[in-house]
Parts: sequence; C-alpha cells; structure tokens
Amino acid sequence: TMDYSTNDSKSTSKNKVVAVVGGGLVGALNACYFAKRGFQVEVFESREDIRQAKIVKGRSINLALSHRGRQALKQVGMEDTIVSKGIPMHSRMIHSLNGTQSPIPYGKKGQVTLLMQRLDTPHSAETYSTTKLNFAHKLLNWSTETGAMTFLRADGTKEEIQADLIVGCDGAFSAIRKQFLRQSRFNFSQTYIPHGYLELTMPPINGEFAMKPNYLHIWPRNTFMMIALPNLDKTFTCTLFMPFDEFENVTTGDQVIEFFQKYFPDTIPLIGADALKRDYFRLPAQAMVSVKCSPYHLSDKCVLMGDAAHAVVPFYGQGMNAGFEDCLVFNEIMDQLNEDFSAVLPEYTRVRVPDDHAIADLAMYNYVEMRSHVNSKWFLFRKYVDNTLHMIMPRTVIPLYTMVTFTRTRYHEAVKRWHWQDKVRNDIVHSSLYKGL
Amino acid sequence: TMDYSTNDSKSTSKNKVVAVVGGGLVGALNACYFAKRGFQVEVFESREDIRQAKIVKGRSINLALSHRGRQALKQVGMEDTIVSKGIPMHSRMIHSLNGTQSPIPYGKKGQVTLLMQRLDTPHSAETYSTTKLNFAHKLLNWSTETGAMTFLRADGTKEEIQADLIVGCDGAFSAIRKQFLRQSRFNFSQTYIPHGYLELTMPPINGEFAMKPNYLHIWPRNTFMMIALPNLDKTFTCTLFMPFDEFENVTTGDQVIEFFQKYFPDTIPLIGADALKRDYFRLPAQAMVSVKCSPYHLSDKCVLMGDAAHAVVPFYGQGMNAGFEDCLVFNEIMDQLNEDFSAVLPEYTRVRVPDDHAIADLAMYNYVEMRSHVNSKWFLFRKYVDNTLHMIMPRTVIPLYTMVTFTRTRYHEAVKRWHWQDKVRNDIVHSSLYKGL
Repeated sequence: TMDYSTNDSKSTSKNKVVAVVGGGLVGALNACYFAKRGFQVEVFESREDIRQAKIVKGRSINLALSHRGRQALKQVGMEDTIVSKGIPMHSRMIHSLNGTQSPIPYGKKGQVTLLMQRLDTPHSAETYSTTKLNFAHKLLNWSTETGAMTFLRADGTKEEIQADLIVGCDGAFSAIRKQFLRQSRFNFSQTYIPHGYLELTMPPINGEFAMKPNYLHIWPRNTFMMIALPNLDKTFTCTLFMPFDEFENVTTGDQVIEFFQKYFPDTIPLIGADALKRDYFRLPAQAMVSVKCSPYHLSDKCVLMGDAAHAVVPFYGQGMNAGFEDCLVFNEIMDQLNEDFSAVLPEYTRVRVPDDHAIADLAMYNYVEMRSHVNSKWFLFRKYVDNTLHMIMPRTVIPLYTMVTFTRTRYHEAVKRWHWQDKVRNDIVHSSLYKGL
Repeated sequence: TMDYSTNDSKSTSKNKVVAVVGGGLVGALNACYFAKRGFQVEVFESREDIRQAKIVKGRSINLALSHRGRQALKQVGMEDTIVSKGIPMHSRMIHSLNGTQSPIPYGKKGQVTLLMQRLDTPHSAETYSTTKLNFAHKLLNWSTETGAMTFLRADGTKEEIQADLIVGCDGAFSAIRKQFLRQSRFNFSQTYIPHGYLELTMPPINGEFAMKPNYLHIWPRNTFMMIALPNLDKTFTCTLFMPFDEFENVTTGDQVIEFFQKYFPDTIPLIGADALKRDYFRLPAQAMVSVKCSPYHLSDKCVLMGDAAHAVVPFYGQGMNAGFEDCLVFNEIMDQLNEDFSAVLPEYTRVRVPDDHAIADLAMYNYVEMRSHVNSKWFLFRKYVDNTLHMIMPRTVIPLYTMVTFTRTRYHEAVKRWHWQDKVRNDIVHSSLYKGL
C-alpha cells in the first residue's frame, strides 16, 4: 500500500539542505545527484582536501569500476570523464607455480572492468553552484529529530548547520551509523576475516609496465594468494592476501625471499629482492571487514549509503559499484516518490537492503571459496565449465560473475538465479568428472 | 603450545583489584567467584540498589535456572539458598485452541527447571569482606592500557579506581563492549527479531494459582504464541510473542478481546476482560535482540561475560544459565593457568566463544522453528518422536533439550551431536509418516 503521491515537491527542493557526510567516492557522487535535483548540498569531509594530497599508492583494491558503477556515473553525466582516467581490464591472468600464465576473460568481447586510481574520482560535485565542499570538518554531534549538526573545523572553531536530509557516506567505520546503533531494532554486524593484506609495488622496466597491463594478475595458492593491479604511472600494486597467523611466521628479510621463492618465484626479479625485503615490513598486514546493517534510514532525516551501509570484503570487485548503485537506486526512488523523504527513505531500505546484503554475502562466499580450494587448476576448470555452459545455453545460463559485473540484475536476484544454475552446473561438473574430463 | 605455568600467583591475588561492571545476575555471581579467590572486588552498578527496589513484576522471561546455572552457583556455595527461592517446573503444559491441556515433561523424573524471580538473585557477594558493592555509579570512561576507570556518582562527584581486571557484565547493551568496537578485528553482531513481546498478569483465584503451577504453560499458535510462568505471589506472568506488525493491528480494547477470543479463549476469564483491555496497552511491545561477538577479551585487562558477551533470544531458557556457566568456565581456566590474566583471558575466549555462539544460534533456531510451524499438534508430535527415540536408544539418542538443560555437555558439542541425531530422527519421522502414523 505505497502512496505514490502526485504532489510534485521538486519545486521546493531548492530551499532544502542536504548534508552529505563523507567526501569520498560515494559522498561525492551523491552530492552531484542531489545538486542536479536543485538541493543545497553541503559535503563534510573530516580529512584535508584529498584532491590536493600527494598520490598515495596502494589501497587500490576494490576500485574496479564495472557496469553498475558506470550507469550511476552516466546518470549525472560523469561516465566519459571518469572512464577516460581508468585502466581497462578485459581479463584475469592466472600465474601458476611453474610460471605459466593463462588468461581468463571477464566476459564477452567489449565487457571490461575499469581499474580506477583512488584520486581520479568524482569531485565534479563542485561544478554545481549549489554545492559546497567542506574539508577538515569533523562531525561532533547531530540530531535525527531536528537535523541540527555540529562540526569542528581544523582551527578549533565550530560550524552549525540545519539539514533537511543527512546522507551518511562516511565509510566502513561510519560516525553517522553510530547513532543508528543507539536506536531500537537496528540490526548490525561487523565481521573481520582471518586474512590480512599487504601491498608491494612492482616498478616499471625501462619506463614500461613490468607485466602485461590490462590484466588482473592472480597467483592463486590455496590458503593465500597474490594479485597485481596496474597503476597509471606504469607500476603494479601487488596485494598479498594471507591469514594473519601466516604473516606472523615471516619476520625477517630472508624469510620473505624464501617465501616468495617458494610461492611467487616469477615476481622476485620484477619487484626486486631488496625492495621486497624492505617493503614487506613497511606496514603491518591490514584487516578486512564485512559490515551489514538494516534499516538504512533513521526517521525521515538520515540515510546511509556506500561502505557506511555495507562494507564488503574485496573479493568480488563490487565495493565501489554497489556504493555507486546505491546513489542510482535512491535517485530512481526519488523520482517515483516525488522527493518525499518520509516515503523515499523507508522504500530505499526496503529495496536496497536485500541487494547489498546479497553482494556482501557473495564477496564473503568468494573469500571462503578461494580460501578453501583456489589454485590455478581449479580456477581454470571452474571457468571452463561456466563458459562452456554459457556458450551452450547463452540465455539460460548466465555466469553469476556476468550478472553481477555486466548487468544491473538486482544482486539478490542474481544470487537466486545462480542457486538454480549452480545445481545444473554441479550436475554437469559431476558427469564431466565421471567421464574423466 | 600452552604455557601451564607452575608459578602459583594466588598468594598475590589479595593485592589485585577486580572491577565488575554491572551488578545484575552474572556480575554478582562473578563477584563471589573473585572474592572467594581473595581478590579485592569492586562491583559497579549504574542503577540504585536494586535489592531495595519494589518488586517489579514481569520481565521474567529467560530466568529459568537449570543444570549449568546450578553447577555455577554450587561452586560458590549458593545453590541451596537460591534453589529454595525458585519455583520448580517439571513440565510444559500445551494449551490447544479447543482448551485441551497436554503436559510434556522437560526430562526424566527429577529433572526440573527452576523459575527464578528477578530479585531473588545472588547478592551474596557482600558476605565477602573483600567485596564492595557500588550502586548508582555510572561508568564515564576507562582505559584498557592502564586499567584506570572513572565513575560518576549520583551526587555528581567522580570516583576513580585502578583495576587489574575489568569484568564487563553490563548486559546486552554493554558500555564496556563499546570500547571493544573501537579495536581492530572485533567481530560483533546484533540482530533484532521481527517479534515483540508483551506481558500480562493473571491474578490468583481465591488466593491460589489460577492454573496449575509448576508448569510452563504454552499456547502455540503458528506465527505467534503465548506462555505463562508462575510467580511466588501466586500470579502468572503471561507473555505474548507476536510479530510487531501484528501488534500494530490491535489498537482498541475490543480488538484485544476479539483477538484473545479467537486464539486464547481459555485465558480471558483467568486474566479478566477488563484487566486485559487495560494492561494490553500499558507498555508497547518490547524488542528482543541476539548479540554475538568475539573475542571476549581486550589485552590482559578486560573480559566480557553474560549478556554483554552473548545476549540470546529467550526461546531456549538458557540466557541466565549460559551467563552463570561463563563464570564457572572462567573459574576453571583460572585454576588451570594459575590466575595469570595474560594467559587466562585468551584461553577463555578460545574455549567459550564457540559455546556461547552455539547457544545463541540454538535460541534463534528455536525462534525460527516456532515461527514457521509451531502449533499444538506439531509440538506434541516432535516431542513424541524425541522421547520415543530416547526410550529405545537412551545412550545414543539424547534429546538436544536434555543435553542443553540437564548436562554440562559443551553447547557446541551438543549441537554437533544433535546434527547427527537429527539425521537419524528425520529418517524415522519420515518412515513413520509414510506408515501413516
């Protein structure tokens, strides 16, 4: 019994203030969406202006831009600019222990994933005259009753504003979300996985990429694995995923070399033995968390999007895409319900929670699957079966990866469909195995 | 590679201060355990002295005392006193829609569950000269580095203490646990169920219980149900469990009567129509939450027990027992590891987390099971199968309920064993059904 009110409130949006907390990827995109609708937008970011900051290498996992993210950018006219700054990746490259490299395309020809650099991100928000970016503003407190917010500036002074809508885009450890936790009946979970990650840089050779660019390089080694992603400066960022207790077993430079000699011998000359010994210990292994919650809104004044609503582990390459699609879905509901926040916010929770939970589960599933039995052979075999099936029955069997990455099929519907397909696939895999394939 | 140090540190325990935060059931029992070992114990409770408070009726769900809880009380010599103040319950009494009542014993003869009144609880802590109870002390802040704690007294003054160990027994919304959330790699979830509960009082008739005491009365009605538990003053507390949205459909006194006429007709004369119309709206339906987390300790200075570590939904009657068993298990590990907190705390996490998670899951499983298909017939049939199996194979098939309620089989082992038994049972149930039983 939805009230699709015909009262068009768009004419009043110009007087309304939307406070976007968090000036990262999702926050900046959201600012564009609200500015385009004519709202007064204030973006508050606790860090200094990150556009001025020195380029920080690494932390590049989870910045793969695919169909959902691009659709969200397109809607506010930002797709082309952003895409031109990404590195297109059309295939994975599996490195086996003996040095063999086998490419596995992501999808059909033309289906590419774009790898973004963290700082090549949409700060186009400022092109809207109704939008103000406030950096170095730390959220002190806010009221979901009145929309009153207080921020602390870097110089110690306070800024107070009155928001009609507060959009929490402040990441996996969201300050906005903390107030949700104090409300009754807010479901929340944060789950750290036993693996940590560590980043290493592979420099260019004679000014060129040390390995083939346009590939996500993967070294699957059962309980751990390494991946390498190209950067615009022709370096690769190598990310080693390994259980924390195995990280603790490697404590000296010599042990690092021994470890790489055993599992990733082809990378030692490319990273350089000395750099490897040094950089391995530059930072401790970093933790990865999966966050789920529900509802996403608090009264008619506050809503969570992006990592603040659903941090995912980085094993499906959908973190940024899911966050961008949040903005797009919210925008669609704003159209349907004429920008009436009291109707839009509950509807957004109803529609979006099952999809975000599904992608969080899928990313975790991929993690568990990889941990238990991913090595090169298994990886190649599974892809072979998927692709063969899709070739035989292109309309019936769409690989889950394709649905997630190259369509806007709702995440939870992709999962539902996949459960059915998986049954079919298992039957075929088993009969193939019995035939001695 | 556990270090079972032989260095007996018990002689130094007298100089060490244990701060127990929360003076409820688990906090008070913990105080006794630490006092018995010779520690200086300070209990801090934010409320006024609850022993002086007027007896508050209701909120009696989850106060069933069974084997685990009794064993924990026994260890500090409190079992007999406590048991004498409980109401023994040896059976459930299932009320079908047509008024028929069918008893289902909890276990074998002599296996009883004791129903406690909230205030008949172990404040025997004060009998130890080394223990101080501090009521109306609100925790302001504390440091896991130094053990320094600051409390706010009712008169506005502050109290500072230095603790060697902080024991967080401050319930499902634990203040102590909040500091854990700020640490890296702390897993946490809180899940509210779609059902709420509402309590009604059934008065005595001519100075006697209105229904048979010594029974847990149950009215199972598929998506909702009511239970009634006896109190020492010869009243019953009736608790109605129902989805929140169904609560919202009943808004007038007449609708209450209509609802009870349809589903619980036998209770209307016993509660009284006027009381029913009035009391139904006295308080809004209350929420129920399941909380899980891990680890339970922070450095060698802080540990969580009871609801602070694992709030469970009240559908297995183990909330209090699990909390009491926490104290007992911690005590056993204190013996094994000579009170060395730096070894005891991680070991406690290692041992206890899987068991507490198992009982939280079991309680949730019972909720889901009840919600989906509990009516009188199904309830009776399932018990029939369980008991029949146990009669035929008493050593092989121990009903899960018996393992959980009348033994100290570790919760997670009980679940493991049950999964195996359940397979056997399903086979038998199905073959019985096919035979037209």
